[in-house]
Amino acid sequence: MIRLEQHGPILEILIDRPERRNALTDAMYRDIEQALRAADADVGCAAVILSGAGGHFTAGNDLAEFQMPQSTQDVGSIAFLHTLASVNVPVIAAVQGQAVGVGVTLLAHCDFVYADRSAVFRLPFVSLGLCPEGASSYLLPRLAGARRAARWLLQAQPFDADEALAGQLLSEITDDPLAAARACAQALAAQPIQAVRASKTLLRAPERDTIHQVLDTEAQAFFERLKSAEAQAAFRQFFARKSA
Amino acid sequence: MIRLEQHGPILEILIDRPERRNALTDAMYRDIEQALRAADADVGCAAVILSGAGGHFTAGNDLAEFQMPQSTQDVGSIAFLHTLASVNVPVIAAVQGQAVGVGVTLLAHCDFVYADRSAVFRLPFVSLGLCPEGASSYLLPRLAGARRAARWLLQAQPFDADEALAGQLLSEITDDPLAAARACAQALAAQPIQAVRASKTLLRAPERDTIHQVLDTEAQAFFERLKSAEAQAAFRQFFARKSA
Amino acid sequence: MIRLEQHGPILEILIDRPERRNALTDAMYRDIEQALRAADADVGCAAVILSGAGGHFTAGNDLAEFQMPQSTQDVGSIAFLHTLASVNVPVIAAVQGQAVGVGVTLLAHCDFVYADRSAVFRLPFVSLGLCPEGASSYLLPRLAGARRAARWLLQAQPFDADEALAGQLLSEITDDPLAAARACAQALAAQPIQAVRASKTLLRAPERDTIHQVLDTEAQAFFERLKSAEAQAAFRQFFARKSA
Repeated sequence: MIRLEQHGPILEILIDRPERRNALTDAMYRDIEQALRAADADVGCAAVILSGAGGHFTAGNDLAEFQMPQSTQDVGSIAFLHTLASVNVPVIAAVQGQAVGVGVTLLAHCDFVYADRSAVFRLPFVSLGLCPEGASSYLLPRLAGARRAARWLLQAQPFDADEALAGQLLSEITDDPLAAARACAQALAAQPIQAVRASKTLLRAPERDTIHQVLDTEAQAFFERLKSAEAQAAFRQFFARKSA
Repeated sequence: MIRLEQHGPILEILIDRPERRNALTDAMYRDIEQALRAADADVGCAAVILSGAGGHFTAGNDLAEFQMPQSTQDVGSIAFLHTLASVNVPVIAAVQGQAVGVGVTLLAHCDFVYADRSAVFRLPFVSLGLCPEGASSYLLPRLAGARRAARWLLQAQPFDADEALAGQLLSEITDDPLAAARACAQALAAQPIQAVRASKTLLRAPERDTIHQVLDTEAQAFFERLKSAEAQAAFRQFFARKSA
Repeated sequence: MIRLEQHGPILEILIDRPERRNALTDAMYRDIEQALRAADADVGCAAVILSGAGGHFTAGNDLAEFQMPQSTQDVGSIAFLHTLASVNVPVIAAVQGQAVGVGVTLLAHCDFVYADRSAVFRLPFVSLGLCPEGASSYLLPRLAGARRAARWLLQAQPFDADEALAGQLLSEITDDPLAAARACAQALAAQPIQAVRASKTLLRAPERDTIHQVLDTEAQAFFERLKSAEAQAAFRQFFARKSA
C-alpha cells in the first residue's frame, strides 16, 4: 500500500490505499519510515516526494487501529514521525483532497508542501476526545500563528487551501501539486546536494530536540486520552455512524 | 467592579468600571485572578469569557497606582498574569473601544480574541518611560512578528483592529465581539471538555516556563523604570495634562 | 569605505564602496562593528541608521575574500554579527537595489528596515556550495515563516520587496527608505531613550544566547563548506564567468 519509485536522485513515495482514502496502518508507517531512512542514508538523494493515490492525500491514522490502546513504544506512527523530524534530505509533499489528522501534522515537518483547491484539512483530535499529535501542538502555533492553531486544534475547524497557505502549512496552491513537487525536487537536485542538506540541518537544528520531546509528550497524553471515557464514547459514535 | 456570571459551563467575567474606562486596580486584578482560578479548578467549566463594560475593554493599569513604586512581590497585576498564563481552561476575550497597556498584553495569553472596528490598541510603555510587561516582550514578536512588535512596543504606535488581526492579536473582527465570544464558548462546550483542556495544556507546555520567567524579568525591569527620572517626568506630565 | 555621520542623537553608517556594489571586506566589517559599539556605549545615542551608497545596499561578503578558507576566530564578519546581535541601541536599515548574502541576513537583526521597490534580496549560499550564516537559519524561519525560509535558503530564490515585506524582513516599503529611516530615528529620539533601550533589551533577551550559539554553529559549518569540492567548483565557475 506504499509504492516507491526512484527517478534519478529523487525518491517518490506514494500512499496507495485509495479504497480507504489512504488511511495509514502501522505497517504503512513502517514502510514510509524505512524509505525515508534509506533516502537519507543515500548521499546522492536530492529530495523525497510524498503523495497520495486516488485524489486524496490521506484520511490519517486508520481509526480501527486506534481502538486498541497500546504503549507509545513500538507504535509505527510515532517512529515514523521521529524519523520524518530527523532526516536531512528535503521532503516535499503534494496534497489533493482529504488531509486528516496525521495527514496534516506530518506536513508541518516537510520542507515544501504543494496543494490544489480540492484540498481540505482537518485535525479532529478533540472531537474524538483526543489531543494533538505529530508535534503539532508545538509546530502549528509557530507555523500558522497561535490564533489559527487554536481554531484548527481546539475548535477542530476544517480548513481549505487558502487558510492553509495563509497559515504557512502550504508553500503554494497550484493546479497540479505533484508536478509542482517534482519541479521543486528537480530544482533542489540542480543545487549542490550536500550544501542543501547542510542548510536543512542548520534550519532544523535549533528545535530538533524539542520536537522529539514534544512527540513523546504528546504520544503519552494521546494514549492516555485514548483510554478516556470521552474518547471511547466518540469512537463508539463514529463506528455506529459508519455501520449505519 | 468585576462582575461574574455563570451560564452553564461558561463563566463570564465583566470588567465593570466604565467611569474610568475599566482601568484596573490591584483589587480588580485579584478578583479576576480568583475567578480564573475557580474556573480552572472546576472540571466542568468549558470556557471563560473576559469583556469590558460601557464600550471599552480596559484603559489598562490605573495610572494612579503606578505612582507608588513597589516591589514585584504581592502586586495584583503580576499575580493575575501568572495565573492567566497558567490556566488550562480556554479563555476568550471580547474587545471594544480602548485596549491599553495590560489591556493589550493580556490578550496575547488568551486563546480566542474577538474585536469590533471600534477597537484601538495602545502599548504606551516607552512613552511613559517604562518597558513592556505581561510577557509582551516575548509573546508579541512571536504572535505579531518582530516588525510589528517593534512598532507597537518601541515606537508605541497605536493600532486598529485590522493591524491587530494581521498581527494575530485577534482571532476575528466582528460586529458583535461578545456574541462571537459566546458562540466560540458554546462550540468549545460542545466538544469533549477534558480533550480541549488536554490540548490547550499541550499547546502551552513548550513555553510556559519561559513565560513565567519573562513575566518576572519584565516586572523587575518595569519597577526599576518606574523609579527612573524619565518615568517620573512622564507621569508628572500625564497628571498635569489631566488636571489642566 | 565606511562613512560615519553623527546628527545629534542619531548615528548614520554609510557603506560607501559603490564601484563594488558595497561588497564588504574584513576591514569594512570591523569599521561598522566599531561604530556600533561606540553608539551602544553612548547613552545619548537614540538610534543607528545603516545604508548603502550608489543605489545598492550591499552585494554581501566580498567573494574574493571567501576563497581563502580561514578559522572562525578573528573573522570580521562574524565579530560584526555578534556585535549587531548584542547592541541595545535601536538599529534601522534603509535598503535600495541589491541586498545579497550577509546583506540580507544582517537585516534580520535590525529593529526597523525600510526598502523601496528597487530592492532585490538574494541568499545564494547553497548555489555557492555554502550554507546559511548570520543566524539566518534561526531567524528567518521565525521572521518569515518556514515556507518562505525554505524558498529563500534551500532553493536560493531571489525575492522582491513585496515578498520581503510579507516575510517581515521589512517594516515598510517606501519611496525614500533613507528618509523613512531618519523619520523613524527621530521618532525614537523623541521617546525617553533609556526606556527604549530597556525595551529592546527585553525584546531580545529571550533569544540572544541562542543567536550567539547559532552564529558560531553556522560559522563552523560555513567554513567547512568553503573547503568542500562543491564550493570550490562553484567559486571557480563564478570567477570564470566574471573574467569572461
